[in-house]
Amino acid sequence: MADAEDNVPDSNRSKCAKAPGAAKDFTDDLKPAGPTGPDVLAKERNQSDVPIDELARHLLGRNDFLARQDRVLRVLENEPLFDKSKQMNLSRPDRYHLGLARAKKLRRLADQHGWDDEDHSMGQYLCDDVSPYMVHYAMFITTIREQGDERQRAHWTPKIQAGDVIGCYAQTELGHGSNVKGIECEARWDPKAQEFILHSPTLTASKWWNGTMGRTANHAIVVAQLLLPKSAESSEYVYHGPHPFIVQIRDMKTHENLPGIAVGDIGPKYGYSPMDNGYMLFDHFRIPHSAMLSNYSRVDPNTCTYSKPANPAVVYGSLTYVRASIIMHARLIMARAVTIAVRYGCVRRQFQDRDNNDKHAPELSVLDYPTVQIRILPLLATAFALHYTGEAMQNLYEGTRAQIDKGDFSKLAVLHAQSSGLKSLCTELAANSIETCRRAMGGHGFGGGSGYIQLNNDYLSKPTVEGDNWMITQQTASYLIKRMAAAVAGKGKPLDEVDEACRTWLKNEHEKNISPLDILRDDWKIVQAFQRRSRHLTYQAYVEREVKKRSWNSLLLQLRKVSHAESQSILVTNFYNALHSQQSQMSPTLQGHLTTLFRLFAFYTMDAEARDFLKANAVSDADLDELPTRIQQLMADIRPHAVRLVDSWKIPDFLLDSALGRYDGKVYEDLFNRAHRLNPLNEVTFNPHYKSDEIVMGRGSEELKRILAKL
Amino acid sequence: MADAEDNVPDSNRSKCAKAPGAAKDFTDDLKPAGPTGPDVLAKERNQSDVPIDELARHLLGRNDFLARQDRVLRVLENEPLFDKSKQMNLSRPDRYHLGLARAKKLRRLADQHGWDDEDHSMGQYLCDDVSPYMVHYAMFITTIREQGDERQRAHWTPKIQAGDVIGCYAQTELGHGSNVKGIECEARWDPKAQEFILHSPTLTASKWWNGTMGRTANHAIVVAQLLLPKSAESSEYVYHGPHPFIVQIRDMKTHENLPGIAVGDIGPKYGYSPMDNGYMLFDHFRIPHSAMLSNYSRVDPNTCTYSKPANPAVVYGSLTYVRASIIMHARLIMARAVTIAVRYGCVRRQFQDRDNNDKHAPELSVLDYPTVQIRILPLLATAFALHYTGEAMQNLYEGTRAQIDKGDFSKLAVLHAQSSGLKSLCTELAANSIETCRRAMGGHGFGGGSGYIQLNNDYLSKPTVEGDNWMITQQTASYLIKRMAAAVAGKGKPLDEVDEACRTWLKNEHEKNISPLDILRDDWKIVQAFQRRSRHLTYQAYVEREVKKRSWNSLLLQLRKVSHAESQSILVTNFYNALHSQQSQMSPTLQGHLTTLFRLFAFYTMDAEARDFLKANAVSDADLDELPTRIQQLMADIRPHAVRLVDSWKIPDFLLDSALGRYDGKVYEDLFNRAHRLNPLNEVTFNPHYKSDEIVMGRGSEELKRILAKL
Repeated sequence: MADAEDNVPDSNRSKCAKAPGAAKDFTDDLKPAGPTGPDVLAKERNQSDVPIDELARHLLGRNDFLARQDRVLRVLENEPLFDKSKQMNLSRPDRYHLGLARAKKLRRLADQHGWDDEDHSMGQYLCDDVSPYMVHYAMFITTIREQGDERQRAHWTPKIQAGDVIGCYAQTELGHGSNVKGIECEARWDPKAQEFILHSPTLTASKWWNGTMGRTANHAIVVAQLLLPKSAESSEYVYHGPHPFIVQIRDMKTHENLPGIAVGDIGPKYGYSPMDNGYMLFDHFRIPHSAMLSNYSRVDPNTCTYSKPANPAVVYGSLTYVRASIIMHARLIMARAVTIAVRYGCVRRQFQDRDNNDKHAPELSVLDYPTVQIRILPLLATAFALHYTGEAMQNLYEGTRAQIDKGDFSKLAVLHAQSSGLKSLCTELAANSIETCRRAMGGHGFGGGSGYIQLNNDYLSKPTVEGDNWMITQQTASYLIKRMAAAVAGKGKPLDEVDEACRTWLKNEHEKNISPLDILRDDWKIVQAFQRRSRHLTYQAYVEREVKKRSWNSLLLQLRKVSHAESQSILVTNFYNALHSQQSQMSPTLQGHLTTLFRLFAFYTMDAEARDFLKANAVSDADLDELPTRIQQLMADIRPHAVRLVDSWKIPDFLLDSALGRYDGKVYEDLFNRAHRLNPLNEVTFNPHYKSDEIVMGRGSEELKRILAKL
Repeated sequence: MADAEDNVPDSNRSKCAKAPGAAKDFTDDLKPAGPTGPDVLAKERNQSDVPIDELARHLLGRNDFLARQDRVLRVLENEPLFDKSKQMNLSRPDRYHLGLARAKKLRRLADQHGWDDEDHSMGQYLCDDVSPYMVHYAMFITTIREQGDERQRAHWTPKIQAGDVIGCYAQTELGHGSNVKGIECEARWDPKAQEFILHSPTLTASKWWNGTMGRTANHAIVVAQLLLPKSAESSEYVYHGPHPFIVQIRDMKTHENLPGIAVGDIGPKYGYSPMDNGYMLFDHFRIPHSAMLSNYSRVDPNTCTYSKPANPAVVYGSLTYVRASIIMHARLIMARAVTIAVRYGCVRRQFQDRDNNDKHAPELSVLDYPTVQIRILPLLATAFALHYTGEAMQNLYEGTRAQIDKGDFSKLAVLHAQSSGLKSLCTELAANSIETCRRAMGGHGFGGGSGYIQLNNDYLSKPTVEGDNWMITQQTASYLIKRMAAAVAGKGKPLDEVDEACRTWLKNEHEKNISPLDILRDDWKIVQAFQRRSRHLTYQAYVEREVKKRSWNSLLLQLRKVSHAESQSILVTNFYNALHSQQSQMSPTLQGHLTTLFRLFAFYTMDAEARDFLKANAVSDADLDELPTRIQQLMADIRPHAVRLVDSWKIPDFLLDSALGRYDGKVYEDLFNRAHRLNPLNEVTFNPHYKSDEIVMGRGSEELKRILAKL
């Protein structure tokens, strides 16, 4: 069981030592009171049989993740530019400077080491900056490839590859987000000049939030309302909805904004400090006909006619892939939050056992208290739950790729419809997990050494972006209600597996004299209980909407519940299936631990909404009463294995950037080092006397003037 | 109804205009698309009959709050040092510089305008910095006054008043927080030298988190384990537990650390940027006998004997007052969060009504969607709920002050015991409210103009400080279990009102054939339902602990539930009492609105834990099923009055510092102004090309070197 020590990069281990040349003082020789963090974690690791490497391969085997992480990590650790230890002291403008410097360096490292795209992404992941290049690599390049026609691709691709064209994607506006049809920016075709006129008629038409645009990009994909004359001679214009245009926005030499364009960075935000989210307005800015990306929609420059081919629903499949990636990312966020919480929860001790008569007994690890366990261990289980659904989505996508490319989405259709609800639930769980863990860490959770500050500030964008979490649950609920309606009608063959499941439920369970499911003795019954509850809630919503004709908006809260119930059902089902599939060749030891985590996730989720399960006749009242006791027992079962379970996620110290969560447990040495040796504020001596406006000792009123100039 | 416009300071209204001298561009003439924010809010304010000024006096009448707020606000608004519009761009070290400059200026303004302590506190509240002087004014001065003997008070008070002595309070250590008895710092009496020797034997003994200590203070109250020789001749030492000492820590002229002391700032944190939370270690640092604060405990310097008078439980009463202040503060935090959310929720529009056939209908205000209402309106109701319990606690304290000063706490005892649970629940509700509101604001909630960033970052300390929210629920539960045990024993007269209520419940309700309470038709039954449920949970916990002798730690989750149920019951009871007390002279209109808010708070709280109420036989299953519909109806009732209800809290724009929450509704103008005219990052032109390590255009590798030097 000593393998844990050998397999995790211990990049931070030397950082608690004094920097060479630093002044010596009496604190250099002090040690923390025992038991020390390293001793505590060694004991934790020795008491458990969790097979770390087997579990790590099981979780992170896809796409050579572990070897890639090690390879790229070794490069970044040796680059001073990627040292994170003092970056929290930087101003927001400096944080952009640093972000740009790192983005450039990463790209040069990619050239130098022959990294592929996945390696480069790994570099961004480990660097942990929201990179000023991010939207260039993501949306900009993808949009040119998918929306550009052959000639456009041929024109732009070499310029992008050379690094000359740096692009962003400008869709969202100051007054318009989720409702894309409502955007105000216009692209009006001028048949005489043979140009489009890009124009922002109002302030709310300003492009807003668009990453990479504020300071970095020299080009943009601009999504604007296409306006065409009714005919070549007409002066009457017709709206054709939002379309993408590629537009140069800054001078290629000076990088100054082009005349007729107001573009800049929107300023400090909750997170995303290194990213230049931008605003942009156009004042009758003219662009050529070739600017309109024309793989799908075209405008005939002479007749002004508009043509649009039957929509090749390629987006359908790739959206599923994007959603799967969001879930796979969410699980790593949770694993990271929980890794810190579990390790520090063991090292940190507080109070003796109240029932212990030995007044000299050591204080307990806080992770021994159920009040700490209940906040952390269900989240550990949830990271695994998210993993199996992310895997299932990716496997399905990859396994049916050939069909997808031919436009046959029959296998993916259900999952795609459900993916909105999954995005909503999973990013919500991950976003909440960070703050829940942080609060369980006591005072040090609030400190800069927690490792939670930037993690939280950046991740809190996720419940809003890529579809607001509350809004998009309507999509899943709408689909489920349609399928239930089809099942009630019951004509012909079922449309898909959800329709089929609804029919089965209507036939066998709905208003039938059936017993609740025996969830405490049979894991499969747990899965069935979640499914039965989801069907029940779907049916209720179907009745309200389709039978009683209730207004859609009055049902929104109920619809969200339907979506979440279905998403929870999918998570539980995929978790169960992964543990019981024939292909799974995991060791019985591992299977045992994963089964405990499965039950904890399922029971914890069920307990939070117990009444739903009762009303659906899915679980008995007596079994529901039993859940809190079961949950506490499952947590006690997991407790001794918690450290090795989080070790298995192999989050490197370099990424954690947390004194509390260090692999080696040197929590207090690291906290002290950050305060005493890495804090620039301690290099200045201040004048604290209120009657003087001297701020820094010996500098008169100079410092006050400097600060005032920044306000 | 035009009074709303007149009574709220409109300090931000001019801030969207161009600064004089700024370059002119085409964006200057752009207006947002209609309906504009000012029009929307005017319509909202016109459609409601909420009597704003009556409600404002009702909520904020105590202690001349409103007039004081206006008076101090006028002063701060005219001081450039208190301009908040660009402060988010500052580095953390600069944020301390600014904080210190503001703290000094506030104190000078107090001298200049003859402000009393309350005025000065109002200045800190409006400035909204966690001030580097904060602990000096709060803990330091109070501790000298309460723990110092007459001679010590006479010695230190003039120096403090002159501003020469600036102090902090050093109790918490790197390895020791809630468990004060576990601190490691020692004060060992050396009878030969007639001095105490302060010493930090380990790294975890370092003082930690102590505000004002890192850079500002020149003195500290140091809490250390008192070690005395067994007798004057003995070399054997005896621990006497933690005691406070006053210690000079920095040179009075140079402000440099004194030899033998390592003291500094702990570095960046989640919030509290302007505050210098510190660390401090002692290396056999000698202090005189007079350093030990000796109002209660004394050491005879010659015989080394220790004396401690019977503890005069003064702390008992004042703690209740502190807890009441925390709740009163929490309500203002919630009011602030909700003010932003309600105003922007009206201005922001998204999607047409799905059931509306008119395709040109305007988009709906997001506050019209139940999915937005459910996140914001129950929080609005909660701010009122907190208000009445804070008031009740302060009234009780003030009404019985004469008794308290004589050491008679009979009236306060119950409330004091319950105040732990209330602190836990109320700060939890307030802390969560900020993020809940933020997420309901879409993308702009993540932006710097939201007004939520600093609010959240600072307030998130509260669930941990002054007693960790999860830990201290044990104190309330422990008390409740004792009272239930006394009631079961039933001997003699009841100890207090809780004992009496337990006896009544045992006699009339426990295991009796009683009906659930008719909560839907009678508000008093709602109160009774919360009380019955709290008694039921208390009784269950009593049985587990006292009858079945379950271990304390295994019951922690149940104990937290008991504490929260009791706290909710107190909140509901005080809210009801305030509306039905004979003294209340509010208008029927106001009473109507407050009753709606009361029901919303009660039903929303009940619905979240519905099963508890069923198990306690407090509410019928059918009534619980009805709650979601009732909640939605109550929210629809409140919706048209939401803007005037938040206006009544009179949070000035200067404090909100929020583009989204501006009183005048000029949301988009303000967001654009912050981005386009107040963002220093837009003054720099960058070189985005990855092959070059030039960061700022035309400056070669200079900028890269500057940034690297900060890492």
